[in-house]
Amino acid sequence: MSTESLAYPSSVDGACCAPLVRQALTADEATDLARTLKAIADPARLRLLSLVAAHENGEACVCDLTEPLGLSQPTVSHHLKVLVDAGLLSRDKRGVWAYFALVPGALDSLAAVLSTAGGATGSSATLSSSC
Amino acid sequence: MSTESLAYPSSVDGACCAPLVRQALTADEATDLARTLKAIADPARLRLLSLVAAHENGEACVCDLTEPLGLSQPTVSHHLKVLVDAGLLSRDKRGVWAYFALVPGALDSLAAVLSTAGGATGSSATLSSSC
Repeated sequence: MSTESLAYPSSVDGACCAPLVRQALTADEATDLARTLKAIADPARLRLLSLVAAHENGEACVCDLTEPLGLSQPTVSHHLKVLVDAGLLSRDKRGVWAYFALVPGALDSLAAVLSTAGGATGSSATLSSSC
Repeated sequence: MSTESLAYPSSVDGACCAPLVRQALTADEATDLARTLKAIADPARLRLLSLVAAHENGEACVCDLTEPLGLSQPTVSHHLKVLVDAGLLSRDKRGVWAYFALVPGALDSLAAVLSTAGGATGSSATLSSSC
Protein backbone atom coordinates (compact mmCIF):
# COMPACT_ATOMS: atom_id res chain seq x y z
CA MET A 1 0.00 0.00 0.00
CA SER A 2 1.46 3.37 -0.90
CA THR A 3 1.54 5.82 1.96
CA GLU A 4 0.20 8.52 -0.33
CA SER A 5 -2.96 6.56 -0.86
CA LEU A 6 -3.78 6.93 2.81
CA ALA A 7 -3.95 10.70 2.66
CA TYR A 8 -7.54 11.63 3.34
CA PRO A 9 -8.03 15.34 3.92
CA SER A 10 -10.64 15.92 1.24
CA SER A 11 -12.59 12.83 2.18
CA VAL A 12 -12.61 13.76 5.83
CA ASP A 13 -13.88 17.18 4.89
CA GLY A 14 -16.42 15.81 2.47
CA ALA A 15 -17.63 13.32 5.03
CA CYS A 16 -18.58 16.00 7.48
CA CYS A 17 -22.25 16.38 6.60
CA ALA A 18 -23.23 13.08 5.13
CA PRO A 19 -23.83 10.31 7.65
CA LEU A 20 -23.63 7.08 5.70
CA VAL A 21 -27.03 5.94 6.90
CA ARG A 22 -28.68 9.11 5.58
CA GLN A 23 -27.08 9.39 2.18
CA ALA A 24 -25.98 6.49 0.01
CA LEU A 25 -22.20 6.25 -0.19
CA THR A 26 -20.76 6.20 -3.68
CA ALA A 27 -18.13 3.57 -4.45
CA ASP A 28 -15.38 6.22 -4.30
CA GLU A 29 -16.61 7.59 -0.97
CA ALA A 30 -16.78 4.09 0.46
CA THR A 31 -13.22 3.37 -0.69
CA ASP A 32 -11.87 6.56 0.91
CA LEU A 33 -13.77 6.00 4.14
CA ALA A 34 -12.69 2.36 4.37
CA ARG A 35 -9.07 3.43 3.92
CA THR A 36 -9.26 5.78 6.89
CA LEU A 37 -11.13 3.25 9.02
CA LYS A 38 -8.43 0.68 8.25
CA ALA A 39 -5.86 3.10 9.60
CA ILE A 40 -7.58 3.11 12.99
CA ALA A 41 -8.84 -0.49 12.97
CA ASP A 42 -5.80 -1.63 14.92
CA PRO A 43 -5.48 -1.86 18.71
CA ALA A 44 -2.04 -0.25 18.86
CA ARG A 45 -3.07 2.65 16.68
CA LEU A 46 -6.26 3.26 18.65
CA ARG A 47 -4.22 3.35 21.84
CA LEU A 48 -1.73 5.71 20.22
CA LEU A 49 -4.50 8.16 19.34
CA SER A 50 -5.75 7.90 22.90
CA LEU A 51 -2.28 8.35 24.44
CA VAL A 52 -1.34 11.29 22.23
CA ALA A 53 -4.59 13.07 23.05
CA ALA A 54 -4.12 12.48 26.77
CA HIS A 55 -0.50 13.62 26.80
CA GLU A 56 0.63 16.99 28.08
CA ASN A 57 -0.39 19.73 25.65
CA GLY A 58 -2.04 17.09 23.45
CA GLU A 59 1.20 16.09 21.79
CA ALA A 60 3.74 13.34 22.31
CA CYS A 61 6.93 11.99 20.77
CA VAL A 62 7.78 8.35 20.13
CA CYS A 63 9.87 8.46 23.30
CA ASP A 64 6.67 9.05 25.32
CA LEU A 65 4.72 6.25 23.66
CA THR A 66 6.87 3.13 23.52
CA GLU A 67 6.67 2.29 27.22
CA PRO A 68 2.88 2.60 27.69
CA LEU A 69 2.29 0.51 24.57
CA GLY A 70 5.01 -2.03 25.30
CA LEU A 71 6.16 -1.94 21.68
CA SER A 72 9.51 -1.16 20.12
CA GLN A 73 10.26 2.31 18.84
CA PRO A 74 10.34 1.23 15.16
CA THR A 75 6.94 -0.42 15.56
CA VAL A 76 5.46 2.63 17.25
CA SER A 77 6.99 4.86 14.55
CA HIS A 78 5.37 2.71 11.87
CA HIS A 79 1.93 3.00 13.50
CA LEU A 80 2.36 6.76 13.93
CA LYS A 81 3.23 7.08 10.24
CA VAL A 82 0.05 5.25 9.24
CA LEU A 83 -1.98 7.66 11.37
CA VAL A 84 -0.18 10.68 9.90
CA ASP A 85 -0.69 9.38 6.35
CA ALA A 86 -4.39 8.91 7.12
CA GLY A 87 -4.67 12.56 8.13
CA LEU A 88 -5.45 11.79 11.76
CA LEU A 89 -2.18 12.88 13.39
CA SER A 90 0.11 15.77 12.58
CA ARG A 91 3.89 15.48 12.89
CA ASP A 92 6.15 18.35 13.96
CA LYS A 93 9.90 17.76 13.98
CA ARG A 94 11.63 19.69 16.76
CA GLY A 95 15.25 18.92 17.48
CA VAL A 96 15.89 15.23 17.87
CA TRP A 97 12.26 14.18 18.14
CA ALA A 98 9.10 14.49 16.10
CA TYR A 99 5.99 15.44 18.06
CA PHE A 100 2.58 14.08 17.14
CA ALA A 101 -0.81 15.63 17.81
CA LEU A 102 -4.39 14.96 16.72
CA VAL A 103 -5.40 16.80 13.56
CA PRO A 104 -8.28 18.99 14.74
CA GLY A 105 -11.62 17.75 13.46
CA ALA A 106 -10.37 14.60 11.75
CA LEU A 107 -11.76 12.08 14.25
CA ASP A 108 -14.94 14.12 14.57
CA SER A 109 -15.49 14.03 10.82
CA LEU A 110 -15.15 10.28 10.93
CA ALA A 111 -17.59 10.11 13.85
CA ALA A 112 -20.05 12.28 11.95
CA VAL A 113 -20.11 9.87 9.00
CA LEU A 114 -20.82 6.92 11.27
CA SER A 115 -23.39 8.71 13.39
CA THR A 116 -27.03 8.25 12.52
CA ALA A 117 -27.43 11.89 13.47
CA GLY A 118 -28.69 11.68 16.92
CA GLY A 119 -29.83 8.25 17.69
CA ALA A 120 -27.56 7.34 20.53
CA THR A 121 -26.41 10.67 21.85
CA GLY A 122 -29.61 12.60 21.45
CA SER A 123 -27.99 15.84 20.41
CA SER A 124 -27.54 15.63 16.71
CA ALA A 125 -30.98 16.82 15.79
CA THR A 126 -29.26 20.18 15.76
CA LEU A 127 -26.69 19.05 13.23
CA SER A 128 -25.82 22.05 11.15
CA SER A 129 -26.61 21.79 7.51
CA SER A 130 -23.57 23.89 6.64
CA CYS A 131 -20.39 22.35 7.94
CA MET B 1 -11.02 -15.39 12.41
CA SER B 2 -13.87 -16.90 14.37
CA THR B 3 -17.18 -15.26 13.79
CA GLU B 4 -17.87 -15.34 17.50
CA SER B 5 -14.89 -13.13 18.12
CA LEU B 6 -16.56 -10.36 16.17
CA ALA B 7 -19.52 -10.12 18.52
CA TYR B 8 -19.33 -6.76 20.18
CA PRO B 9 -22.47 -5.84 22.11
CA SER B 10 -20.86 -5.18 25.45
CA SER B 11 -18.05 -3.17 23.95
CA VAL B 12 -20.44 -1.08 21.90
CA ASP B 13 -22.43 -0.40 25.05
CA GLY B 14 -19.33 0.29 27.09
CA ALA B 15 -18.07 2.66 24.45
CA CYS B 16 -20.97 5.03 24.91
CA CYS B 17 -19.41 7.42 27.36
CA ALA B 18 -15.73 7.17 26.82
CA PRO B 19 -14.39 8.96 23.76
CA LEU B 20 -10.94 7.50 23.17
CA VAL B 21 -9.33 10.93 23.19
CA ARG B 22 -10.69 11.72 26.65
CA GLN B 23 -10.05 8.46 28.46
CA ALA B 24 -7.09 6.17 27.82
CA LEU B 25 -8.17 2.95 26.12
CA THR B 26 -7.10 -0.24 27.84
CA ALA B 27 -5.55 -2.96 25.71
CA ASP B 28 -8.77 -4.98 25.87
CA GLU B 29 -10.94 -2.02 24.92
CA ALA B 30 -8.63 -1.24 22.02
CA THR B 31 -8.81 -4.83 20.81
CA ASP B 32 -12.61 -4.87 20.91
CA LEU B 33 -12.91 -1.50 19.21
CA ALA B 34 -10.40 -2.43 16.50
CA ARG B 35 -12.38 -5.61 15.79
CA THR B 36 -15.56 -3.64 15.17
CA LEU B 37 -13.77 -1.02 13.10
CA LYS B 38 -12.26 -3.80 10.96
CA ALA B 39 -15.78 -5.03 10.26
CA ILE B 40 -16.68 -1.69 8.68
CA ALA B 41 -13.27 -0.84 7.21
CA ASP B 42 -14.30 -2.28 3.87
CA PRO B 43 -15.92 -0.41 0.97
CA ALA B 44 -18.53 -3.08 0.25
CA ARG B 45 -19.57 -3.33 3.89
CA LEU B 46 -19.80 0.44 4.27
CA ARG B 47 -22.03 0.58 1.21
CA LEU B 48 -24.14 -2.28 2.57
CA LEU B 49 -24.77 -0.37 5.81
CA SER B 50 -25.71 2.65 3.75
CA LEU B 51 -27.98 0.70 1.41
CA VAL B 52 -29.74 -1.19 4.20
CA ALA B 53 -30.42 2.04 6.08
CA ALA B 54 -31.77 3.74 2.96
CA HIS B 55 -34.00 0.82 1.98
CA GLU B 56 -37.75 0.78 2.50
CA ASN B 57 -38.54 0.36 6.21
CA GLY B 58 -34.80 0.34 6.96
CA GLU B 59 -34.40 -3.31 6.10
CA ALA B 60 -33.28 -5.23 3.06
CA CYS B 61 -32.61 -8.78 1.93
CA VAL B 62 -29.64 -10.01 -0.07
CA CYS B 63 -31.91 -9.94 -3.11
CA ASP B 64 -32.15 -6.13 -2.77
CA LEU B 65 -28.41 -5.61 -2.37
CA THR B 66 -26.55 -7.60 -4.99
CA GLU B 67 -27.46 -5.39 -7.94
CA PRO B 68 -26.56 -1.99 -6.41
CA LEU B 69 -23.24 -3.38 -5.18
CA GLY B 70 -22.46 -5.31 -8.35
CA LEU B 71 -21.33 -8.30 -6.29
CA SER B 72 -22.46 -11.91 -6.26
CA GLN B 73 -25.00 -13.09 -3.73
CA PRO B 74 -22.49 -15.30 -1.84
CA THR B 75 -20.12 -12.35 -1.55
CA VAL B 76 -22.85 -10.01 -0.31
CA SER B 77 -24.01 -12.70 2.13
CA HIS B 78 -20.47 -13.00 3.48
CA HIS B 79 -20.21 -9.25 4.05
CA LEU B 80 -23.64 -9.16 5.70
CA LYS B 81 -22.58 -11.94 8.05
CA VAL B 82 -19.48 -10.00 9.12
CA LEU B 83 -21.69 -7.00 9.91
CA VAL B 84 -24.14 -9.17 11.85
CA ASP B 85 -21.32 -10.82 13.79
CA ALA B 86 -19.95 -7.37 14.63
CA GLY B 87 -23.30 -6.40 16.15
CA LEU B 88 -24.01 -3.73 13.53
CA LEU B 89 -26.80 -5.45 11.58
CA SER B 90 -29.63 -7.67 12.77
CA ARG B 91 -30.88 -10.60 10.72
CA ASP B 92 -34.50 -11.71 10.60
CA LYS B 93 -35.36 -14.80 8.59
CA ARG B 94 -38.82 -14.59 7.00
CA GLY B 95 -39.78 -17.20 4.46
CA VAL B 96 -37.15 -17.67 1.80
CA TRP B 97 -35.13 -14.56 2.62
CA ALA B 98 -33.35 -13.11 5.61
CA TYR B 99 -33.91 -9.41 6.18
CA PHE B 100 -31.17 -7.19 7.54
CA ALA B 101 -31.53 -3.93 9.49
CA LEU B 102 -29.23 -1.63 11.43
CA VAL B 103 -28.94 -2.50 15.11
CA PRO B 104 -30.25 0.66 16.81
CA GLY B 105 -27.47 2.63 18.48
CA ALA B 106 -24.57 0.46 17.32
CA LEU B 107 -23.12 2.90 14.79
CA ASP B 108 -23.79 5.79 17.14
CA SER B 109 -21.86 4.09 19.93
CA LEU B 110 -18.96 3.70 17.57
CA ALA B 111 -19.24 7.35 16.54
CA ALA B 112 -19.28 8.39 20.20
CA VAL B 113 -15.98 6.64 20.89
CA LEU B 114 -14.31 8.35 17.94
CA SER B 115 -15.80 11.74 18.63
CA THR B 116 -13.71 14.18 20.59
CA ALA B 117 -17.04 15.44 21.89
CA GLY B 118 -16.28 18.84 20.51
CA GLY B 119 -12.68 19.14 21.63
CA ALA B 120 -11.24 19.67 18.22
CA THR B 121 -14.03 21.90 17.09
CA GLY B 122 -14.00 24.13 20.12
CA SER B 123 -17.14 23.16 22.00
CA SER B 124 -15.99 20.41 24.36
CA ALA B 125 -16.09 22.54 27.46
CA THR B 126 -19.82 21.89 27.49
CA LEU B 127 -19.50 18.11 27.42
CA SER B 128 -21.90 16.59 29.88
CA SER B 129 -20.31 14.45 32.54
CA SER B 130 -23.29 12.10 32.57
CA CYS B 131 -24.16 10.57 29.24
